[in-house]
Amino acid sequence: MCNMAAEHPGGSKIILKFAGKDATKEYDPIHASDIITTHLPKEKHLGPVDTASVEQVIEDQTPDEHRRTLLYAARPPLSDIMNLYDFEVLSRELLPPKTWAYYSSGSDDEIALRENHSAFQRVWFRPRVLRNVNKVDFSHTIMGCKSSMPFYISAMALGKLGHPDGELCLTRAAGKHNVIQMISTFASFTFDEIVDAAAPGQKLFSQLYVNQDRELTRRYVQNAEKRGIKALFITVDAPQLGRREKDMRMKNAADSGNDAGAKVQKGQKVDKGQGHTRAISSFIDPSLNWDDIKWFQGITKMPIILKGIATWEDAVLAVEAGVQGVVLSNHGGRQLDMARSGLEILVEVIGELKKRGLWPNPNFQLFVDGGVRRASDILKALALGASAVGIGKGFLYSYCAYGQEGVEHALKILSDEMEMNMRMLGITRLDELVPEMVDARALTMHTVPSPEHVLYNNTCAFPCYH
Amino acid sequence: MCNMAAEHPGGSKIILKFAGKDATKEYDPIHASDIITTHLPKEKHLGPVDTASVEQVIEDQTPDEHRRTLLYAARPPLSDIMNLYDFEVLSRELLPPKTWAYYSSGSDDEIALRENHSAFQRVWFRPRVLRNVNKVDFSHTIMGCKSSMPFYISAMALGKLGHPDGELCLTRAAGKHNVIQMISTFASFTFDEIVDAAAPGQKLFSQLYVNQDRELTRRYVQNAEKRGIKALFITVDAPQLGRREKDMRMKNAADSGNDAGAKVQKGQKVDKGQGHTRAISSFIDPSLNWDDIKWFQGITKMPIILKGIATWEDAVLAVEAGVQGVVLSNHGGRQLDMARSGLEILVEVIGELKKRGLWPNPNFQLFVDGGVRRASDILKALALGASAVGIGKGFLYSYCAYGQEGVEHALKILSDEMEMNMRMLGITRLDELVPEMVDARALTMHTVPSPEHVLYNNTCAFPCYH
Amino acid sequence: MCNMAAEHPGGSKIILKFAGKDATKEYDPIHASDIITTHLPKEKHLGPVDTASVEQVIEDQTPDEHRRTLLYAARPPLSDIMNLYDFEVLSRELLPPKTWAYYSSGSDDEIALRENHSAFQRVWFRPRVLRNVNKVDFSHTIMGCKSSMPFYISAMALGKLGHPDGELCLTRAAGKHNVIQMISTFASFTFDEIVDAAAPGQKLFSQLYVNQDRELTRRYVQNAEKRGIKALFITVDAPQLGRREKDMRMKNAADSGNDAGAKVQKGQKVDKGQGHTRAISSFIDPSLNWDDIKWFQGITKMPIILKGIATWEDAVLAVEAGVQGVVLSNHGGRQLDMARSGLEILVEVIGELKKRGLWPNPNFQLFVDGGVRRASDILKALALGASAVGIGKGFLYSYCAYGQEGVEHALKILSDEMEMNMRMLGITRLDELVPEMVDARALTMHTVPSPEHVLYNNTCAFPCYH
Amino acid sequence: MCNMAAEHPGGSKIILKFAGKDATKEYDPIHASDIITTHLPKEKHLGPVDTASVEQVIEDQTPDEHRRTLLYAARPPLSDIMNLYDFEVLSRELLPPKTWAYYSSGSDDEIALRENHSAFQRVWFRPRVLRNVNKVDFSHTIMGCKSSMPFYISAMALGKLGHPDGELCLTRAAGKHNVIQMISTFASFTFDEIVDAAAPGQKLFSQLYVNQDRELTRRYVQNAEKRGIKALFITVDAPQLGRREKDMRMKNAADSGNDAGAKVQKGQKVDKGQGHTRAISSFIDPSLNWDDIKWFQGITKMPIILKGIATWEDAVLAVEAGVQGVVLSNHGGRQLDMARSGLEILVEVIGELKKRGLWPNPNFQLFVDGGVRRASDILKALALGASAVGIGKGFLYSYCAYGQEGVEHALKILSDEMEMNMRMLGITRLDELVPEMVDARALTMHTVPSPEHVLYNNTCAFPCYH
Repeated sequence: MCNMAAEHPGGSKIILKFAGKDATKEYDPIHASDIITTHLPKEKHLGPVDTASVEQVIEDQTPDEHRRTLLYAARPPLSDIMNLYDFEVLSRELLPPKTWAYYSSGSDDEIALRENHSAFQRVWFRPRVLRNVNKVDFSHTIMGCKSSMPFYISAMALGKLGHPDGELCLTRAAGKHNVIQMISTFASFTFDEIVDAAAPGQKLFSQLYVNQDRELTRRYVQNAEKRGIKALFITVDAPQLGRREKDMRMKNAADSGNDAGAKVQKGQKVDKGQGHTRAISSFIDPSLNWDDIKWFQGITKMPIILKGIATWEDAVLAVEAGVQGVVLSNHGGRQLDMARSGLEILVEVIGELKKRGLWPNPNFQLFVDGGVRRASDILKALALGASAVGIGKGFLYSYCAYGQEGVEHALKILSDEMEMNMRMLGITRLDELVPEMVDARALTMHTVPSPEHVLYNNTCAFPCYH
Repeated sequence: MCNMAAEHPGGSKIILKFAGKDATKEYDPIHASDIITTHLPKEKHLGPVDTASVEQVIEDQTPDEHRRTLLYAARPPLSDIMNLYDFEVLSRELLPPKTWAYYSSGSDDEIALRENHSAFQRVWFRPRVLRNVNKVDFSHTIMGCKSSMPFYISAMALGKLGHPDGELCLTRAAGKHNVIQMISTFASFTFDEIVDAAAPGQKLFSQLYVNQDRELTRRYVQNAEKRGIKALFITVDAPQLGRREKDMRMKNAADSGNDAGAKVQKGQKVDKGQGHTRAISSFIDPSLNWDDIKWFQGITKMPIILKGIATWEDAVLAVEAGVQGVVLSNHGGRQLDMARSGLEILVEVIGELKKRGLWPNPNFQLFVDGGVRRASDILKALALGASAVGIGKGFLYSYCAYGQEGVEHALKILSDEMEMNMRMLGITRLDELVPEMVDARALTMHTVPSPEHVLYNNTCAFPCYH
Repeated sequence: MCNMAAEHPGGSKIILKFAGKDATKEYDPIHASDIITTHLPKEKHLGPVDTASVEQVIEDQTPDEHRRTLLYAARPPLSDIMNLYDFEVLSRELLPPKTWAYYSSGSDDEIALRENHSAFQRVWFRPRVLRNVNKVDFSHTIMGCKSSMPFYISAMALGKLGHPDGELCLTRAAGKHNVIQMISTFASFTFDEIVDAAAPGQKLFSQLYVNQDRELTRRYVQNAEKRGIKALFITVDAPQLGRREKDMRMKNAADSGNDAGAKVQKGQKVDKGQGHTRAISSFIDPSLNWDDIKWFQGITKMPIILKGIATWEDAVLAVEAGVQGVVLSNHGGRQLDMARSGLEILVEVIGELKKRGLWPNPNFQLFVDGGVRRASDILKALALGASAVGIGKGFLYSYCAYGQEGVEHALKILSDEMEMNMRMLGITRLDELVPEMVDARALTMHTVPSPEHVLYNNTCAFPCYH
Repeated sequence: MCNMAAEHPGGSKIILKFAGKDATKEYDPIHASDIITTHLPKEKHLGPVDTASVEQVIEDQTPDEHRRTLLYAARPPLSDIMNLYDFEVLSRELLPPKTWAYYSSGSDDEIALRENHSAFQRVWFRPRVLRNVNKVDFSHTIMGCKSSMPFYISAMALGKLGHPDGELCLTRAAGKHNVIQMISTFASFTFDEIVDAAAPGQKLFSQLYVNQDRELTRRYVQNAEKRGIKALFITVDAPQLGRREKDMRMKNAADSGNDAGAKVQKGQKVDKGQGHTRAISSFIDPSLNWDDIKWFQGITKMPIILKGIATWEDAVLAVEAGVQGVVLSNHGGRQLDMARSGLEILVEVIGELKKRGLWPNPNFQLFVDGGVRRASDILKALALGASAVGIGKGFLYSYCAYGQEGVEHALKILSDEMEMNMRMLGITRLDELVPEMVDARALTMHTVPSPEHVLYNNTCAFPCYH
């Protein structure tokens, strides 16, 4: 166990709370099993705990936990799940509030979070007809890897909060259905545990938060390469993790509950505004910059993708830096609120790269993530020039509700939707998808309705018979 | 009483219902007292009724009428009425449902009705500062008549439905406060009764629905001129009165009540879709056209204004026809649904008249009506080029709730608002009001939000902690 | 009866459920009486059933069915129905949930479904005044056939689900009022039954889903021609029927009810995601393409209209293919979600055809369907260049609620609205309708409001006194 | 005590109500203690009151006051306050309704009030990545004064209504955290009391409503300069205080309560439409104009800023008048309703100043206020060219709920947000903030949704299974 209360990224309070007790249940989902060896210097390792010597934390179900247990048992059969939204609705009911808050929260006012989906709603289809679409093929190649569909599973942290098998649900389903998973630096399972769960020949990507201790990062990257990872996605939009107030409030609520009856001394300030986000963020290096990219190119031969580019200016810099691609993204609306959606950035970036003769570019790929829930979303992004899209929460919630089977069902739904949508668009292969198949003119329109005229609407709203 | 069941504009049913009875209470608000002499040929006049010979219709208050009587008695003091909307909210509660339905209804889906106000919400102010606005003067001249404020009271039909003194509340208040009233062809009081109620020297306009029998119209117009009317507003946007379904439904509801228990023979079709609108519309001539304008110019020297012009093309024709002005309007949203608001037409018309060298034009005035409720609305229209605006419902509801005193209070509110708004705009006289004081670029934008993404919003609406 | 459980388009389950029983009640509304002879090869015909030998399915009304029976008996008199929306509101209450789900559902998120009407709300009128509109004539010629109004009744499948007389309600009302009906390939009555129900000289169109077995299609088309059909509308936007989740969910709900108490073996996957849509879609040929058009031109002299064109590019191909017209449409929002509305496509297509000298074109007609509910919608489409519009659901719901009389009343409403709207637009014949009478500049604006700022609105929403 | 009932700016009624009684509790929050000496001529000063001779107004808590007392005691710990909105939500609950009405109300329909925030929602970020943002510095210089953050605390009137320490909460917190406070002419504490509460060396600005008696204004200004005020902000957008109906209604409600049981004689008009706003507004001079600016430049050496410029035309006049800057503002939406937001004006002003070679301009600063609640709002304004922003209500509500500690916590929140947002924007100093970091193209779009199509939405709103 960790004895570094003062330096603990999740704050000292949680350390003190469980001091001398077995904290495994709280500890496990947010710490991969190798975190002590990979993130802490050797001298802090105390060795195995004598479990007989620790006080047990008694586990009783609260009424709310009991309710969720019953709900889980009463989940509808998977065949009733029609689309990826269904998983999300279910998960909101099934997950503990703290977990739901961590998974679903965006930063600040969550406008960027919701904008991600709104962007897709501003792009309309121009489908072609009378083409033989009997046989439809939507298999794809992503960074040189075959994929049964034109997307990858995005990295998401702390998978065990939602299901005991956490990220392994994704790994196993992805392997079975030939889809690529991107492993998060902050997964609940260790990097190696996840790779070990992969099927022979299964393709994986690795997402990287760059540690302030570059040596730890070097070891992590080189281990990834050794284990056969096909591409390294370096997160560049998180010099610090965003202000996810829903997550922060949940932490507070939990603490307040725990503090019930405790006397708070006047003037004693306890900073409780933390949540899971803070717990995982303190290792990230805010000094990461373009110069570091060369260093990465020196320590690995894996293709490097910069995850979190938000302007054409940085996309041009990325091309010049010689990386193999970028993910256009606002980090799922969890970093800078009111940063634009990946889809909107995509159109800007391609326009500007073209002007500079940098697009199309066989050595440089553009990916988009954020808000993807249906095959139609995927097809819009590809029509506008994306090489592939990343899908995160759609799969996260599928395993929260149904484990690996849920992920497989989600893949089946997307596959059905892909076939249907491609037929109705009039294409049989993804290379037939062209920009003319969408009308994206509304994409940059950020419409905010003028304030409502309440008095007028009160009198004249239809139908007001009386 | 009328014995022409078959030709009665309100349908034969109502005639038969009251056959042999005293129908005065139902008849009075929707028939001016001279309707028999002015609208029926002589041979149909039967002479006075022997009231002893008719069956009385017993009058008991229904519970709903009783409730409204109590509400009326409990109206707040006038000093609590802050703006014209307050009158409207009160009237909705105080008026019988049929009356509210008739007064408040627009045509079809009532989109034009509500658009009238929405148009003003799309125009923003650019106020000037640091001008001496100690003394503010908003008196005005409309068609050569002095007015204390830059608007006139628009013509509205069937005033007695809302108050026993009906249109006379307007006449008396207008006379006292030096404002011009326009008399409706379909007023509950006769034209002469209203003129008789005017103060000495009080200025009045006359609105005209052109009758299929031009001789009746000639007599009406020449009587108006003889009585000193200052301008004749010929309604040109009502070849037929619009489909006001709220009004029609109320009539149905009333009838259904009356028919309760009656057996309806299979196949017997009773057309109940009528309402007050149908009752007053059958005399209007749908063949009225530009050639008729010459005829009017031959029978009267009064200035002629065409009320209900909706395009620049017709405004140009109006100039060429030599009339003295037009009212740009969609008839309060009561005629063609989804016709544009007067304010939007105004900007188009001035632009096109200018291109043709027809504007500014000392012999041709542009008026606007529809949706005006505050001094700020008036100032927007004048800044964009209107000579004056017409206000109807704002005053209608003020007397429904408080009689003449209500109208006077409404005028006081508008006067206060005019002073305050002109000061804050940085002007002391209306001729200092210039187009640069408004930003009307959004005026022609008819924004309809895309259909809501219900599934997404269900899952991701903020704040959904659980 | 059919014994081909494995190949049954509705799935094998339904076959097994009724095995050995009389399935007439379930079978009848979704299978025209000639389906066995027209869709199945001869060797599968088993001959007539001995009804004495089959087990009867006892029919008891559920409480919900009982409630609907009472509601049906208490429908308001037809004279209270003011517009086509009223039929829809009633039908939602009166129809069994499965039927409502099938009729009302769109594909995926139903955005295209609702967009169809939204498009009309983005087009505003510019009405002309002072024209003699005493006599208004809105009779029209559609594909050489006289019609009392400028629309046809669109093809809709499975009419008996909503009324025992199904499509025949439409045929009889259309014949009586001189309106053209388009017969669906998937009507509940056979093609010949519907034609037999037509009045002498009544004009009919035929809609065609092209079968994978072209011989069946050839027989269907040539029979149509023989029976006097005036135009063949080949559906080209349905290589596969869309994902109508409302319909699919209803099917699931029904099945779950039936399965109550049944043990589901672990791992046993029953694909219940079907609904009525799947039941009728499996014959459609996804390989249909432009080459097939020539084949159709070889087997019939009927004019050919391609139903479901969604881009100007395909409209040009249609002209080049020598067909007589196209229906611009997104299939009522039931195929590719977020495909644009027919009205929006219309403006694009006419613009591009004009550029290429292909418009106006006496040999090529443009039709529009989707979202039409009022005469004002019809007039907007015609002003923008459509030859006529198709109306489906407006009539469907009129007979669901009132049978043939409902359809006649719907026609009467549209007729009243046509007369009134044409008068108020200032036209007496449809050829006076010009593009200048509408402002369609907002038509291509797909406005999606930015995500709501919930925190701000919570604090500052007006009026928040406390 | 004041004996000038007839001339009392708050009306005579309040004077008469407390005649002969001790009105301190009502008087105190809305009259600074020097108001008699600074606003009244000497001959009206009656000297100290013999408190034994006055009737006491008994103070009992109403149930509503009691409820608020309990709520106040149960406020959450400050650490639970996540953002400035939280203070506002709390204050709405904690403040007496009259105070909330005065603080929160805008003018007329409160559209400008809410537009202020809406403007920020129309500006999106274009963040840069891969820059070393380890150390972030957001200290700033405003009118030559060092500030820990790029904003000042705006002037707000009547601070004691919300907290016994009123404006002093702001002064003390500002001093402690090195932020500049602007003192309102209408503060509850006297100018000198506030300056006396400041820490040694603490920087303060002064806001000025210009009195009709310029001698009083001269004394006020010269005293300010003597006390070390660093800049004089002359309010130029308030020739008269706006029509804040929420405030007016509350005054009415209070009066009505007091009048309960009193008989109102018919015809007796009591003008109750007043509220706090009227109480403080009557000294303001509506004749203030550009010529007066020279006079101010003659009586003080303090930099002069014109507060309330709303057009580029007036901004140019301000440059020409030789003042040191302007505040672009609509006065928090409390003056002319539907005047544009400061943020929108900013973009216009900078564009036009540039065209005239007047920008950038070391001698002329542009400030913006209205609707600022988060660091992201501040950064948007600065990116678009503002020198600093003013924040008012965000701090007002922080002390209403928590006194000085609340203000300090608000400053801490903004500081955290500044650091986080700057890192995520990719900047370490405010001079790295450039216009390219925001997309403000939507800023001038004043979108008003078309009226809702109620009938259609009633039938077709998704999901309507039944």
